[in-house]
Amino acid sequence: MYDRLRKIQSPADLKALTEEEVAELAGEIRAFLVEKVSLQGGHLSSNLGDVELTLALHRVFSVPRDKIIWDVGHQAYTHKILTGRRDRFDTLRQAGGLSGFPKASESKYDAFDTGHASTSISAACGYAVARDSLGEKYEVVAVIGDGAMTGGLAYEALNNAGKGRSKIIIVLNDNAMSIGANVGGLSSHLTSLRTRQAYLHSKKNLKRAMDRVPLVRPVLRLAQTCKNKLKYLFLQQGILFEEMGFTYLGPVDGHNIRDLEAVFRKAKRLEESVIIHVRTIKGRGFDPAEANPELYHGVDRFDAAVGMVKRKEEHTWSQLLGQELCRRAQTDPKLQVITAAMAHGCGLDQYAQAYPKQFQDVGIAEGHAVTFAAGLARGGARPVAAIYSSFLQRAYDQILHDVCIQNLPVVFAIDRAGVCGEDGETHQGIFDIAYLSHIPNFTLMAPSDEEEMKRMLAFALDWPGPIGLRYPRGRVPAEPPESKQEPIQRGRGRILRQGRGLAVLALGPCVGEALRAADLLRQRGMEITVADARFAAPIDGELAESLAARHEMLITIEDHIAAGGFGMQVAARLSGKGLPCRIVSLALPDRFLKQGTREELLKENHISAEGIVELWEKRNELT
Amino acid sequence: MYDRLRKIQSPADLKALTEEEVAELAGEIRAFLVEKVSLQGGHLSSNLGDVELTLALHRVFSVPRDKIIWDVGHQAYTHKILTGRRDRFDTLRQAGGLSGFPKASESKYDAFDTGHASTSISAACGYAVARDSLGEKYEVVAVIGDGAMTGGLAYEALNNAGKGRSKIIIVLNDNAMSIGANVGGLSSHLTSLRTRQAYLHSKKNLKRAMDRVPLVRPVLRLAQTCKNKLKYLFLQQGILFEEMGFTYLGPVDGHNIRDLEAVFRKAKRLEESVIIHVRTIKGRGFDPAEANPELYHGVDRFDAAVGMVKRKEEHTWSQLLGQELCRRAQTDPKLQVITAAMAHGCGLDQYAQAYPKQFQDVGIAEGHAVTFAAGLARGGARPVAAIYSSFLQRAYDQILHDVCIQNLPVVFAIDRAGVCGEDGETHQGIFDIAYLSHIPNFTLMAPSDEEEMKRMLAFALDWPGPIGLRYPRGRVPAEPPESKQEPIQRGRGRILRQGRGLAVLALGPCVGEALRAADLLRQRGMEITVADARFAAPIDGELAESLAARHEMLITIEDHIAAGGFGMQVAARLSGKGLPCRIVSLALPDRFLKQGTREELLKENHISAEGIVELWEKRNELT
Repeated sequence: MYDRLRKIQSPADLKALTEEEVAELAGEIRAFLVEKVSLQGGHLSSNLGDVELTLALHRVFSVPRDKIIWDVGHQAYTHKILTGRRDRFDTLRQAGGLSGFPKASESKYDAFDTGHASTSISAACGYAVARDSLGEKYEVVAVIGDGAMTGGLAYEALNNAGKGRSKIIIVLNDNAMSIGANVGGLSSHLTSLRTRQAYLHSKKNLKRAMDRVPLVRPVLRLAQTCKNKLKYLFLQQGILFEEMGFTYLGPVDGHNIRDLEAVFRKAKRLEESVIIHVRTIKGRGFDPAEANPELYHGVDRFDAAVGMVKRKEEHTWSQLLGQELCRRAQTDPKLQVITAAMAHGCGLDQYAQAYPKQFQDVGIAEGHAVTFAAGLARGGARPVAAIYSSFLQRAYDQILHDVCIQNLPVVFAIDRAGVCGEDGETHQGIFDIAYLSHIPNFTLMAPSDEEEMKRMLAFALDWPGPIGLRYPRGRVPAEPPESKQEPIQRGRGRILRQGRGLAVLALGPCVGEALRAADLLRQRGMEITVADARFAAPIDGELAESLAARHEMLITIEDHIAAGGFGMQVAARLSGKGLPCRIVSLALPDRFLKQGTREELLKENHISAEGIVELWEKRNELT
Repeated sequence: MYDRLRKIQSPADLKALTEEEVAELAGEIRAFLVEKVSLQGGHLSSNLGDVELTLALHRVFSVPRDKIIWDVGHQAYTHKILTGRRDRFDTLRQAGGLSGFPKASESKYDAFDTGHASTSISAACGYAVARDSLGEKYEVVAVIGDGAMTGGLAYEALNNAGKGRSKIIIVLNDNAMSIGANVGGLSSHLTSLRTRQAYLHSKKNLKRAMDRVPLVRPVLRLAQTCKNKLKYLFLQQGILFEEMGFTYLGPVDGHNIRDLEAVFRKAKRLEESVIIHVRTIKGRGFDPAEANPELYHGVDRFDAAVGMVKRKEEHTWSQLLGQELCRRAQTDPKLQVITAAMAHGCGLDQYAQAYPKQFQDVGIAEGHAVTFAAGLARGGARPVAAIYSSFLQRAYDQILHDVCIQNLPVVFAIDRAGVCGEDGETHQGIFDIAYLSHIPNFTLMAPSDEEEMKRMLAFALDWPGPIGLRYPRGRVPAEPPESKQEPIQRGRGRILRQGRGLAVLALGPCVGEALRAADLLRQRGMEITVADARFAAPIDGELAESLAARHEMLITIEDHIAAGGFGMQVAARLSGKGLPCRIVSLALPDRFLKQGTREELLKENHISAEGIVELWEKRNELT
């Protein structure tokens, strides 16, 4: 098994293969991908879709001299397999293992780290200008999916590439869907490309193709008298790119290695920037994924022989959001729910089906999502923007400048807040308190359990200014027996257990850990105080002060980086007050957090009941 | 004088005017604009450019029912004059006076607050969806300049507007320049539009226009047999917008009110989203501004009879940056300086001329600027991204995700950091410590004087990771005699004066205030300690601790909002240490900071020597 694949030690080995051998290799890679991803989870559909594309790239270009930049990056598995990382594939996305994304620190063959969408063309422009200014010679290739082309950053980059600039090659991997369905004008544009492939397959076939279409004959005559109109007439679908100063090649069948290599070789020969339009099929070669690529986009382990079996799903925070928004929409025609290509991930599938007129998927375009929400609020609607914590980073200025200066009532449902897990550094939602809590007018809540989420969402939907709820990936815990079900008041926490000696002021899901720590210490005969902060901005300073005044030690605990986090705000608030209390913040260390399961990473960083108990026990050793 | 203008109490009064009367009114408005801006400063060229555009909008549409959203917003003076704010125009951009930008809190005629570029289409989409979902009837018009069309946010919005969506009207105010010269592909596209006006002036004139062009006859025949190709054949210049699902109207002469009104009325009648391409001339009607619109973009007061006189310029922080980069470029071929349409504002005019191959103006596209810089760094160049503090907010995720995760050596020259002044809330650079200091790997410095700026820039250019310098608008102070010229060490401050009782730990230009406070207190016989923090991230915790240990009171002072600022970091660091020292942070209050001069605003908020002295004197009243 994998006989062909085993012989590939580096991409250079690919160049000697015959076409038949490459085709065989592609088959082996597909089998390898299905096997490995079925065993350990990961991104499948997109990787099955670009096997030939990757092989052809590596046969025409020579990494690491040439630079291939994988936009988003979760489609680079074949690239990893071909660049010396096949044997470590069992460790993919695991703590200490191979990253699911390109990482320059992992391999010299990875030219640029990615994770968020739409960055590759900008990075390619940078490489290309550096190359030309330093007098070096290599090609720079950005591989970007059509979904990522909805992000404004890609457009800013296109606007700065093209004619007269340092040459780059853009491979537009058009698989007719991003993570969910594609959205908007550019998507229609690409759809129009796809439906007219016969016209465009190659310039050589142009006349023949046109002859099949009656209308085209007179146009061809015109074209002959008007040479530079040709591309407008027949490659009009590529005009957007041509107008931006690129040479447009394609569309080319992304599963035909010979065609791919031909077009890549042509792009290499050209001296100007090129856009190559490649059509691929997500999930290609694995029937279940081809039939339902979205289901196999990012997967947990599954039985490769059977395909994915619909399991009884856990009750997640995301689903709870969708459920509560459905409930609200029944009586609130003003509700508008916005997502940026993450309807499924944000638990909004059912909502989207039930309330299509009150649902807006703007594609991968977080900045627009937020300013759009601001406009909705100005127009009298009640917008909820459901966006992952790490993706909301892309809308920082829109939150500050378009929502908060005007103090507009936009609700931010900040999913995947805190440690996210296997996707690693780029996807951890561990900065949102830092980048949101300092913005004037912004209120930031963190629910600790199912009932709190319901209460906070209801509170948020009635709050007259910008307000966010941050909640993590995964299962939502039930309300603990201690809950006093106090109504939400802005900037006020609540005490769940009253004890002495140690007070734990916990945020969001860390409340559960604080209660567990209280149970552990109760077994040792000690009753501690546990408070639920509820708000990360504004913090309940009075509560913090009163806890500090009445306890020997105050521990804050949060699922967020220490710098700029909840604990830092509490510490600053209590500073210089001459309080005799020890104040310790349990938070993630001030560095990017690598991949691992959420559970592993929290445990490893002591964001746990055990971490609390340990701190208490070591209190006299603390400086 | 202003007889006609004085009769306009609200935009409704415009509708009864004859064409001649409107023309007269336009003349009076121009005179009024030149008079007022010459007396008190403000934005001139863009406002002179859209007088007729604004008049026509208000004659065809009816605010406040219809919504006009002014992108960027500094071109809305005529709108303000016509909507009941003429009499307050003397207070423009002054503390307590009229804002230089649209502000919903100032007038019901202002539909959406703007300040940063490229937001208007997103906001318009929001308004339009709210309108349709709530069953209301009004028009939503976004007025956006071609410069703002280089921002990715505008493209994300275009992608989500157009065919089948809620109707909006986009007025593309094409004046062939943004703040500086326009950059990139879309700009070429618009240039191409401008050169072919005869073809496009109106559909009515289309046939006549075509008859003048021999080539066009056969095409017209084809067009008749192929209706939906017409727009591709003849309005190909508008194809980018047509492809995105808009009806494209124009170009129209932006100084011909009759044509403008006709095209606006047509847009109003259409049921689908429309893009209207309007050509205007910046500075129109005031010869000096028309001749040199960039010079008159944003101006201080000047003599309207003479025009602006080149004054001996102050030696500013921005100029110092440009000067030092010129010096560096002499010996460093790897240096690449990037700006986002702010070459002049960032002091880079001379640099851009002297080192065009080492200078990259990417247009209004801060996100791209930063990811481009990351690519440059990966490619071995030495990028310096010079961006205003408030505009850099737009690249938060690019800094975090593209630069800092990879720990790439990109230097951020963060101009206009701190209180900025007359532009008000949207332009204050008072959040950068909060949004940058928590990002792992990021180093943030703040020079206090000219020599420090030189030292820090040299340090930054040799630092192997992401590093920023924040410095304010205005004059750079000379090195004070106390300076010990110690070399820069990452995360280490320096003590400038050693005293007792009170220690002031100052950041950036606040060091000057701290030294002045020391002089004031010396006059009263007291010697205080003054330390220059030098770094806002990482802070010099040891220095802070040792100051707190040896003084009765520690005051931190910074030109930044309190939340997430330098003082908060210091306070958190010293918290729970049982130190007997009072710790007080002098920082801007946690709200958006309205307009006023930099000096006024700093004084009003006690970010001054007097503020320090006062705190010291009141130390016993502090809780």
